[in-house]
Amino acid sequence: MKNWKHLEIPQAFRPGVPALDEFPFKIWGKLAARRWRNAESRLFGYTNPAGYQPLREEIAAYVQAARGVRCSAEQIIIVAGSQQAIILAANLLTDPGDRVWIEDPCYMGARGALLSSGVQLVPVPVDHEGLVVSEGIVRSPQARMVYVTPSHQFPTGVTMSLTRRLALLQWARRTGSWILEDDYDGEYRYMGRPLASLQGLDTAGRVIYIGTFSKVLFPALRLGYLVAPPDLVDAFSEARGTLDRNSPIHQQMVLTDFIVEEHFARHIRRMRTLYEERQHILLAALHKYLPEQLQVRQSEAGMHLVAYRNETSGHNMRDTEIVRLAADNGVAVNAISRYYIEQEPQNALLMGFAAYNEQMIYDGIKRLALLYALLRNAALMGRETI
Amino acid sequence: MKNWKHLEIPQAFRPGVPALDEFPFKIWGKLAARRWRNAESRLFGYTNPAGYQPLREEIAAYVQAARGVRCSAEQIIIVAGSQQAIILAANLLTDPGDRVWIEDPCYMGARGALLSSGVQLVPVPVDHEGLVVSEGIVRSPQARMVYVTPSHQFPTGVTMSLTRRLALLQWARRTGSWILEDDYDGEYRYMGRPLASLQGLDTAGRVIYIGTFSKVLFPALRLGYLVAPPDLVDAFSEARGTLDRNSPIHQQMVLTDFIVEEHFARHIRRMRTLYEERQHILLAALHKYLPEQLQVRQSEAGMHLVAYRNETSGHNMRDTEIVRLAADNGVAVNAISRYYIEQEPQNALLMGFAAYNEQMIYDGIKRLALLYALLRNAALMGRETI
Repeated sequence: MKNWKHLEIPQAFRPGVPALDEFPFKIWGKLAARRWRNAESRLFGYTNPAGYQPLREEIAAYVQAARGVRCSAEQIIIVAGSQQAIILAANLLTDPGDRVWIEDPCYMGARGALLSSGVQLVPVPVDHEGLVVSEGIVRSPQARMVYVTPSHQFPTGVTMSLTRRLALLQWARRTGSWILEDDYDGEYRYMGRPLASLQGLDTAGRVIYIGTFSKVLFPALRLGYLVAPPDLVDAFSEARGTLDRNSPIHQQMVLTDFIVEEHFARHIRRMRTLYEERQHILLAALHKYLPEQLQVRQSEAGMHLVAYRNETSGHNMRDTEIVRLAADNGVAVNAISRYYIEQEPQNALLMGFAAYNEQMIYDGIKRLALLYALLRNAALMGRETI
Repeated sequence: MKNWKHLEIPQAFRPGVPALDEFPFKIWGKLAARRWRNAESRLFGYTNPAGYQPLREEIAAYVQAARGVRCSAEQIIIVAGSQQAIILAANLLTDPGDRVWIEDPCYMGARGALLSSGVQLVPVPVDHEGLVVSEGIVRSPQARMVYVTPSHQFPTGVTMSLTRRLALLQWARRTGSWILEDDYDGEYRYMGRPLASLQGLDTAGRVIYIGTFSKVLFPALRLGYLVAPPDLVDAFSEARGTLDRNSPIHQQMVLTDFIVEEHFARHIRRMRTLYEERQHILLAALHKYLPEQLQVRQSEAGMHLVAYRNETSGHNMRDTEIVRLAADNGVAVNAISRYYIEQEPQNALLMGFAAYNEQMIYDGIKRLALLYALLRNAALMGRETI
């Protein structure tokens, strides 16, 4: 039986986990209590699978303003997180055996979700400009769908260039293919101007935009949304109904209030500042304790850094092996090589910084530094591991 | 665009809707507020797809005591309602094209869920003892799975006899087929002793038992559970994770408290008494205002009655036509013929009584009586409708 208990231990440096202890649970709880006190019982039966209408309106206004998405409230389908959005889109827009481009390396949740709907995945490499569209066209010119994370590619952290965005949209328009744009942590950008979302650039109605509250609020809320082209709204709504009817209504009401009463905007602003600070702390700690072992650059966006093995690291270990040894020493990092499908994997560690304060960051880095020192000693003595 | 707004109007006699205005939202809200006040942030990240462990324990104890289900807490998988449980089981235990027995007539949500996983449905008739197992064996002796509602067949209201239960279990054991036992409103039994669940009678581990809180609490909560055989627990848990990770954690915590602090048992007891009264009121109203038009019997269990067209009704209309005319006159009934697949449909109305007080019941029946009087006049004058 898989042990989930360990996830409840706040241990640096898990990627994708927000600062749960900074979430205003007290405020949320007050809004929740108010909604329960004034519960209109008639709203607690079976309701519209597309979601609570006032929440759809708030989300439409938000994605228009913050992400350049062009949509009406009717196009918003509330889902139980991005995983479900991917499954809905794949079930609805592909047939088993259809080819779907996927970034290589790729977010594993998306990969699992797509595979579960029976499609055939076509891995397409990612470079410093994001998905290499021309390579996708070579590998599968008529793919039915593509899954991309253009704002902040997972796991590499690359932002897709405008040229690539336009090339991808052009291909989709020409072939009638679908683009799933997963904007899982687009709220956190620290440098440069955010590029317009693919959905905002799209003039042919080929993009399904996916957003989640797992990163900006907390994962256990299980609320996200997708923005469907107008003529697919009814089909998405019906598909959601078949899958599990709708998301719990009360949480949708509380989230509506949280947005309307501006706690949402305030929390995002606070977290953006906090995560930027935490990234700087992590960078400083890495520069201080592991300057020769790991090569890192500031990340423009998101909640994690990628730390590449340096030539001067003094060891030849694979990232997966480092991860195993680090876990034994109380440090949780992820190996980037795990996310590769066909491409030659990089040797790098994924280090989440959002959920950890200065002390936890330094503690984790010191443990890692000790590990690297032991590895270097072992290598000097001709041993393969410590 | 489908209009969902009408569902928010409390209009007699929708089946399957509990008495939402009797739910103790105030108590629920207090428990919810307490859990938010004391929120342990570490629990609000990504967690076990099988559910919140203390809730799994409470549910295991409950289904053992109340429904004769034999299981440990580890076998409980929390789901987002019975619809999702059916999809999980179908995805996990069947391949596209596999044959699955389904009751004829049948709950349409189950039919849609099963079809979405690509199986081929084999309709099997239902008589006064429930699913006609021998007929299923004739039609598809090696079906991979069967979907049944033995406690209170939807829509006919029949309770599956012990003989049939044993025959079904014997068939499943012999063929290695799976039984999905959907116990959607098993809590509400007014006459006779509840028969042991199929799961409790099963000695070969062929039953997936499905329970929901939509009927005993409220639908918009979106919480249910399935009881998996021990060797399938990990597979179900992983499949749930792929689908949408897990159910929102806070609602699972509140439900745990609601059960532990005995609000759950009290609410079920109160609703059982209330629904029994409401059924009697509906029967009395029908006997008073429509004695010749509709033939009804007290239902042993559940939240709806089936009112069959009487020979003396004075009209020859199909139930679907009555439903349409009733809707125009502010009465919401369902036609049983809608639920039939291949069998010759009965001509009967499904009338939910759980959600409606005496005044609403009498008001609805008077409107129906007026409609039937108009129909009789029209028939006497040789017209086909009013």
